[in-house]
Amino acid sequence: MKIELYDTTLRDGAQGEGVNFSLEDKVMIARRLDEMGFDYVEGGYPLSNPKDAEFFQRLAAEPLKYSKVCAFGMTRRKGVAPADDPGMKALVESQAPVITIVGKTSDFHVHEVLRVSLEENLAMIGETVEYFVKLGRQVVYDAEHFFDGWKANPEYAAQTIQAASQAGASHIVMCDTNGGSMPEEVVRIVKEAAAKVTTPLGIHTHNDCDLAVANSLAAVDAGAVQVQGTINGLGERCGNADLVSVTANLAIKKQGYEVLERGELEHLTELSRYVYEIANMSYRINQPFVGPSAFAHKGGMHVHAVNRVAESYEHIAPESVGNERRVLVSELSGRSNIIAMTTKHDIAEDKQLMDSILREVVDKENKGYQFEAAEASFDLLVKRAAGSFTPHFELVKFHTSVESRGGQPVTEATVKLLVGDEVRHEVAEGDGPVNALDAALRKALNGLFPNLRGMHLVDYKVRVINSEAATAASVRVVIESRDSDGEVWGTVGVDENVIQASWDALVDSIEYKLCKDEGNPAS
Amino acid sequence: MKIELYDTTLRDGAQGEGVNFSLEDKVMIARRLDEMGFDYVEGGYPLSNPKDAEFFQRLAAEPLKYSKVCAFGMTRRKGVAPADDPGMKALVESQAPVITIVGKTSDFHVHEVLRVSLEENLAMIGETVEYFVKLGRQVVYDAEHFFDGWKANPEYAAQTIQAASQAGASHIVMCDTNGGSMPEEVVRIVKEAAAKVTTPLGIHTHNDCDLAVANSLAAVDAGAVQVQGTINGLGERCGNADLVSVTANLAIKKQGYEVLERGELEHLTELSRYVYEIANMSYRINQPFVGPSAFAHKGGMHVHAVNRVAESYEHIAPESVGNERRVLVSELSGRSNIIAMTTKHDIAEDKQLMDSILREVVDKENKGYQFEAAEASFDLLVKRAAGSFTPHFELVKFHTSVESRGGQPVTEATVKLLVGDEVRHEVAEGDGPVNALDAALRKALNGLFPNLRGMHLVDYKVRVINSEAATAASVRVVIESRDSDGEVWGTVGVDENVIQASWDALVDSIEYKLCKDEGNPAS
Repeated sequence: MKIELYDTTLRDGAQGEGVNFSLEDKVMIARRLDEMGFDYVEGGYPLSNPKDAEFFQRLAAEPLKYSKVCAFGMTRRKGVAPADDPGMKALVESQAPVITIVGKTSDFHVHEVLRVSLEENLAMIGETVEYFVKLGRQVVYDAEHFFDGWKANPEYAAQTIQAASQAGASHIVMCDTNGGSMPEEVVRIVKEAAAKVTTPLGIHTHNDCDLAVANSLAAVDAGAVQVQGTINGLGERCGNADLVSVTANLAIKKQGYEVLERGELEHLTELSRYVYEIANMSYRINQPFVGPSAFAHKGGMHVHAVNRVAESYEHIAPESVGNERRVLVSELSGRSNIIAMTTKHDIAEDKQLMDSILREVVDKENKGYQFEAAEASFDLLVKRAAGSFTPHFELVKFHTSVESRGGQPVTEATVKLLVGDEVRHEVAEGDGPVNALDAALRKALNGLFPNLRGMHLVDYKVRVINSEAATAASVRVVIESRDSDGEVWGTVGVDENVIQASWDALVDSIEYKLCKDEGNPAS
Repeated sequence: MKIELYDTTLRDGAQGEGVNFSLEDKVMIARRLDEMGFDYVEGGYPLSNPKDAEFFQRLAAEPLKYSKVCAFGMTRRKGVAPADDPGMKALVESQAPVITIVGKTSDFHVHEVLRVSLEENLAMIGETVEYFVKLGRQVVYDAEHFFDGWKANPEYAAQTIQAASQAGASHIVMCDTNGGSMPEEVVRIVKEAAAKVTTPLGIHTHNDCDLAVANSLAAVDAGAVQVQGTINGLGERCGNADLVSVTANLAIKKQGYEVLERGELEHLTELSRYVYEIANMSYRINQPFVGPSAFAHKGGMHVHAVNRVAESYEHIAPESVGNERRVLVSELSGRSNIIAMTTKHDIAEDKQLMDSILREVVDKENKGYQFEAAEASFDLLVKRAAGSFTPHFELVKFHTSVESRGGQPVTEATVKLLVGDEVRHEVAEGDGPVNALDAALRKALNGLFPNLRGMHLVDYKVRVINSEAATAASVRVVIESRDSDGEVWGTVGVDENVIQASWDALVDSIEYKLCKDEGNPAS
């Protein structure tokens, strides 16, 4: 059976803390969702702000190819005819082919929040839906607080969706607005609702109980034919149902449902990361199906088994959702992890080289290195062992100092390098000793390697390794860098001295970038 | 019905990408779980590394009060008697009262991964469980790949758990090792398994389909009486079932189950954040129940309604899990935590003082401070606000420098202090700038405060707060210190400059110790 996917990333997703889309962002995401084959794309609430109104004009001028564009609004105000209501006018002007109307299901909300009579609420629902149907629009009816309302007063809740159904809504969408319902409640109530209306049902859940995806799937099993959600589960509080997980589960894991029939499932990981990038948010590293860790193996026993038979510790093939298997090098892992990580270097035949890499990795791990978040340092290690690495510069000396007299500290770093035959000696200030070192290092190199200008550090983490001895113990510094191509790589340094460890990670990061740009990526 | 909570944060959680616990971290988390009333705390895999073995010795020397400590291992090797197997010896030596044994359920894995006969696998399970039962240990049996194995060959899968049951296992735990099962499969198979053994059943799920919590709850509804999971859902790939969500759902949302009966549910948010801080990981902002966004309201309509009737857009009271409502226009975070944290200072009556503490905390949190793992800094903040704090020394200036000429870097720090009327100006070397500062500071203070000699730093963590600007962004330094009484305390510093932030945390740590020893603890 075909299950329709209704994306509300641009409307309900934008309610999430820290989520802000510009007009351009919204248009780009809508076009990407269209390419992927999502059935509906809800673009916003035209009454609420001019940006959303403008969005609909942009899409009216250059329509989507596949997805139906939906504009969102509330039922008409109390005692106002639809034609006179500013919210209705904004929806008409949006030119969106689908109008999604949210209305109240719960008598508690009708009384306490809306403050109208139960009869007036039914009239508000029916007249609003009918108004747009008569204008030739498709109307999706979102029944707010559906499950809570049904639990409290099932007779009245049924009347609200019957009002929408009789007025010509194409779908009745049951919303678990507060995200508080359990799957068994969802199943029971969806079945009860299906007995009250013949209109196709949809489901819209929130993740407040960590059950949004489970509740969406349970509703589909109970008869819903449309699922509303957001990419990556963006949304207010704990977010909406993650349409990425819903889609993958319906397409791959469950039997008898069709979604994204045009074979776009292999772009799911790309879509997820695209939305994160546009929203300027970090990936959720362990996100089901599409996270960078979703098919990453760390335990040595598991890695050993995965190498033998992939499906032994993977529930699906990573490629089916556009993701990939990764093997993490760590203290818990054995030899098989390292062998797996070097396969892309195509050196497995060279047993002597493999052994020298293994010895080097074990030696470094004993000193406290971790390569799981530092694949760039691992790649350089392999190149060094293979003799295919020539450093672009050599350290003569560096010096950093920080001085405070109680106010803002003063920080300075000097760096003296040998670059080819040339000596470069530079000084810079910074917000801290590592920032100052980074600045001096770039000052010394930027002239010769202008591509370093497009590279910047995106994260810097420090961890004491042997915490028994605290500040006198070794520290591990992990640096993440990104360049203008959008590639992100990690490097690591370990030393008793945090400045030395930071320096080593900085140098690896720059060397990796320089190797990569020579058409000679470390890998 | 009582549902047992089995925490495996320290073992399966530590398999998560980027998760690394020191020995001290593990001991602290175990004690926190014990205070919270978790029934079982799985500490590690003693054969796999010396740190885990040492962990069990620490807990044997100073046992937990409530939680049962579990040591994890595999069934004996093929063709080896349990008494001769190094894995079994490591488990015996752990002295853990509960031994958790994982064994193979799936004939596919027995053949392809373990490479033994089906009969030998049954003998390995039975003999291993029996061995520990005869030694007087409680044995929890984890049936790996339980659901996949049952789907492929239910007869053989049943034999494996019957072998464990007949050998005296206290629980049979059904593991969805690859995280690929749907809730309806879990329900069906749990019921089928319950017909095959009388031993109480447990459930252990992974989140690869975004369904780990739903599958855990479904298994409990179908008859499981123990849930295994990790705090914050840490764990390999997409993580384990999040015990935070499982606990909250069982305690508050579902009917008829009892967990954490001692009323510790209001500390769930604190626990979640404590584990993130110890693991040096960022919070998942929209995490169900405990995330900073879980009860944050952004949509104007929602905020309006929430102000009128709280439950209109909240499925539970935030305080019931130790969280709090936030309205995203006014960033008032941590409020209920703060009130909870100040209760021990017995100042709740002084509303003016409370308000000034609240303002100070909000201000500091906006700058990036987090007090969850830095109660000593919080105690000093309260004392300062109350006017009951006199610093033992004042900074005139400090200076640190690090210089490298390619070999071992040379690090030096000078500190000039005013102690009473006396000026102390000292210099020291160190392994890094913070270590050198710490040494110079102690050189300046030790003569006057000899009790500082018994105090040392046990951990030092640095994290970038606003990672957009990387090394130029603010950093948060958290220092853990311990004295000869065995008390451990945390302090925090935040600054753009890592040296300044470290200095602030160091000074707080020493002031806390000095206050404490004056018979005048900050609390």
